[in-house]
Amino acid sequence: MDASEFRRHGHSLVEWIADYLEHSDRYPVLPRVAPGDLTRALPPHPPESAEPFDAVIGDFQRLIVPALTHWNHPGFFGYFAISASPPGVLAEFLSAALNQQAMLWKTSPAATELEGVTLGWLRQLVGLPPSFEGVIYDTASISTLHALAAAREAAIPYVRTQGVRGSSTQSPVRVYCSDQAHSSVDKAVILLGLGHDALCRVKSDERFCMSVAALREAVTRDRAAGVLPIAVVATVGTTSTTSADPVAAIAAVCEAEGLWLHVDAAYAGVAAMMPELRPMFAGWERADSVVINPHKWLFVPFDLSAFYTRRMDVLRQAFALVPEYLRTAEGSAGVPNLMDTGVQLGRRFRALKLWMVLRAYGAEGIRVLLAEHLRLANMFAAWVDVDPRFERLAPTPFSVVCFRAVPPSVPPSDLDVFNERLLDAVNATGEVFLSHTRLNGAVALRLAVGHMRTTETHVARAWELLREKAVGLVGL
Amino acid sequence: MDASEFRRHGHSLVEWIADYLEHSDRYPVLPRVAPGDLTRALPPHPPESAEPFDAVIGDFQRLIVPALTHWNHPGFFGYFAISASPPGVLAEFLSAALNQQAMLWKTSPAATELEGVTLGWLRQLVGLPPSFEGVIYDTASISTLHALAAAREAAIPYVRTQGVRGSSTQSPVRVYCSDQAHSSVDKAVILLGLGHDALCRVKSDERFCMSVAALREAVTRDRAAGVLPIAVVATVGTTSTTSADPVAAIAAVCEAEGLWLHVDAAYAGVAAMMPELRPMFAGWERADSVVINPHKWLFVPFDLSAFYTRRMDVLRQAFALVPEYLRTAEGSAGVPNLMDTGVQLGRRFRALKLWMVLRAYGAEGIRVLLAEHLRLANMFAAWVDVDPRFERLAPTPFSVVCFRAVPPSVPPSDLDVFNERLLDAVNATGEVFLSHTRLNGAVALRLAVGHMRTTETHVARAWELLREKAVGLVGL
Repeated sequence: MDASEFRRHGHSLVEWIADYLEHSDRYPVLPRVAPGDLTRALPPHPPESAEPFDAVIGDFQRLIVPALTHWNHPGFFGYFAISASPPGVLAEFLSAALNQQAMLWKTSPAATELEGVTLGWLRQLVGLPPSFEGVIYDTASISTLHALAAAREAAIPYVRTQGVRGSSTQSPVRVYCSDQAHSSVDKAVILLGLGHDALCRVKSDERFCMSVAALREAVTRDRAAGVLPIAVVATVGTTSTTSADPVAAIAAVCEAEGLWLHVDAAYAGVAAMMPELRPMFAGWERADSVVINPHKWLFVPFDLSAFYTRRMDVLRQAFALVPEYLRTAEGSAGVPNLMDTGVQLGRRFRALKLWMVLRAYGAEGIRVLLAEHLRLANMFAAWVDVDPRFERLAPTPFSVVCFRAVPPSVPPSDLDVFNERLLDAVNATGEVFLSHTRLNGAVALRLAVGHMRTTETHVARAWELLREKAVGLVGL
Repeated sequence: MDASEFRRHGHSLVEWIADYLEHSDRYPVLPRVAPGDLTRALPPHPPESAEPFDAVIGDFQRLIVPALTHWNHPGFFGYFAISASPPGVLAEFLSAALNQQAMLWKTSPAATELEGVTLGWLRQLVGLPPSFEGVIYDTASISTLHALAAAREAAIPYVRTQGVRGSSTQSPVRVYCSDQAHSSVDKAVILLGLGHDALCRVKSDERFCMSVAALREAVTRDRAAGVLPIAVVATVGTTSTTSADPVAAIAAVCEAEGLWLHVDAAYAGVAAMMPELRPMFAGWERADSVVINPHKWLFVPFDLSAFYTRRMDVLRQAFALVPEYLRTAEGSAGVPNLMDTGVQLGRRFRALKLWMVLRAYGAEGIRVLLAEHLRLANMFAAWVDVDPRFERLAPTPFSVVCFRAVPPSVPPSDLDVFNERLLDAVNATGEVFLSHTRLNGAVALRLAVGHMRTTETHVARAWELLREKAVGLVGL
């Protein structure tokens, strides 16, 4: 593809993308395809000869687009809704073209230093002190993995050289999180060789927040049994209900017990930009590490996870390893190289999109969007609360509402099935998409507001569909 | 940024990128900035108000571009040269806009199935049998980590639940690779909690290939000492010299000893598309897992690492973990969800660029590019061989030449310093960039051909500069 062809296709894609981002509601949120449909529509063998790019783009539109789940749809209310903001998309376009591999300062001074600068900006916006140094990873799974790797490094002597097995006198270790914490904590303890049994899921209270009394008890019980507590993962904005663990009280336990405190604020962290929500984060400045995902609620295209720690030295101690072919004069002179702070050697230029999004919207513009999402979620929660045929199943501290239908004619034992059918019926319209979870054993529907183009109209339509389909199902 | 503004900036970036990709040789390969320069040029605090995107793009051009290391420069010969091919860049533009999060089939049927299809294509192109199932990760570091996690899962009973420590009867384990293997193997054994001591670096022969006799001896010695061998990482295309371990002989050892065989072909794997090079890979079809990085030598923008395994069930056993909020009807019906094959829950739509690149060039077009890179490297190697003031330090099986200057007037004890200075002098021109390594204790210069726009002119210019600067340094 020569420059003129690149220009022609590039311009045409700019038009297509502009149109797509503006009118993503023309598509059903969930695609109408069955497993295997796309696979069967594509050739099983690779092309021997070059194909005209027009044909590739044609197939993209004819085959790929109909198999997309439209995370850009303003009626996308599943999981945590995200946004490919226009400045973020343009930044990724540039980043792909520049093809930086920022393993060393030398291999991309721009990516290395812009990462430091933009993470400093984000840190200030969410009110974390300057003692927190940041690094960008791809996902919160990887951020939390690094947090617990650092905790392991800090707690187990010689773990880097001798492993978790170490000397036979090494006690088994324990990591704590609430029963609402994300599955990435489970995957991290498994990967780190601590074993899934090393994870203690502390029970949460009726508001789905970690019970600090239960945490204290678990730690005491473990110590008495010869188990070594090493870390606590507190969550602000849990995946099911967005509940916030009492971080300050947990920090006090961690300080008293010498445990690494990691705060998983992957979803909710950016909400610390809102003065009225800042109290939800009280105490996170005492954490050893914090993760915030700008690709979740900061309008940055996937992927970009911001990891902060007050103990970057421990992380470097766990991972720094410089083979000869990666030695540089700058590295020897103490200039930080991103490869030293993680398991991935290769790092793409993710900071560019964070920089462009923060500048294009400004702190003010972002707060306006977040405030609107909070307002929409609370509006929806209020609708649920006043309708006797529905009930809310959790508080709504951020922009996610957990609820279910409770039509008087449906016996309690049938409510799970009823709500599953309701979810399917609503999602089948293609106008909106909600996901589910299970709270205290019951199926709960989740409406997550987070896409930048979602307006009151979309939330109202979701509510209308829910009521309409519920009536229809009751009528059956 | 509304649609019309997106159009305006998008079109202008298409022009900028087209120009940049066509004329990347207008920039010095290595930027002329010192550590901290960019940081100091940027505001320490985030913008409170939105800024016009023109200002952002202006700063991008004024501040970011001069701090880039130009991996797109045709004179980039460092590390492994890579390419942001135009079709790959356009695919990433689309991928950013679509903002797929392919954790579940349901959250992106397109990304999930296109990943399967394109990995099938690549598998056929490199001649691996259909028993190899693939998954896309970000980097080879993560691919190799998953390979060794699966090896650990296969070898240590109950490791998932009880960890590496497990019962007190669990023997210490050992992983083997050559002294030329990549540092990602070290990072993986550390992360997995096996400990760095669990890695045995088997010595390589005079061609930098793993000595199979030494491997056999090490395994026997370990077994005798009560250490449990679990895996071997063989490399085809090592980082320093691109040497290839004798995979077939290593596979025989692994089969006899019941060890997981992982083949790191991150750089060289795509060269298996060339019939004349296929013999270098003999035996890799007997491996348990293989990694090939299309972002290295397949003209796909960073990042995309293709991981293949004949034992995907073991990987799923190690990592599958489905919280309630991610349960789907498709998942329950056995449709594969990408989240089950790794530590990262979030997956971006990387298959799109692999699909577009493979179609835009065709197998034929890719072979032409690879053949040219091989030709250029061999041409350069021949120049080195016939010049008495230079010597080659390793065979050149692929597209990387390891060599050094050996001017008669420089005593052997000064050769390292001389070659370091020569490298600095050549790189300071900004016309080319070479990196270094150390072979048998001596500083070696590396010329890595791999960028798609590199031509004979650029390689010749590198050679000219090397000779010219060497003369200059001798004259001092």
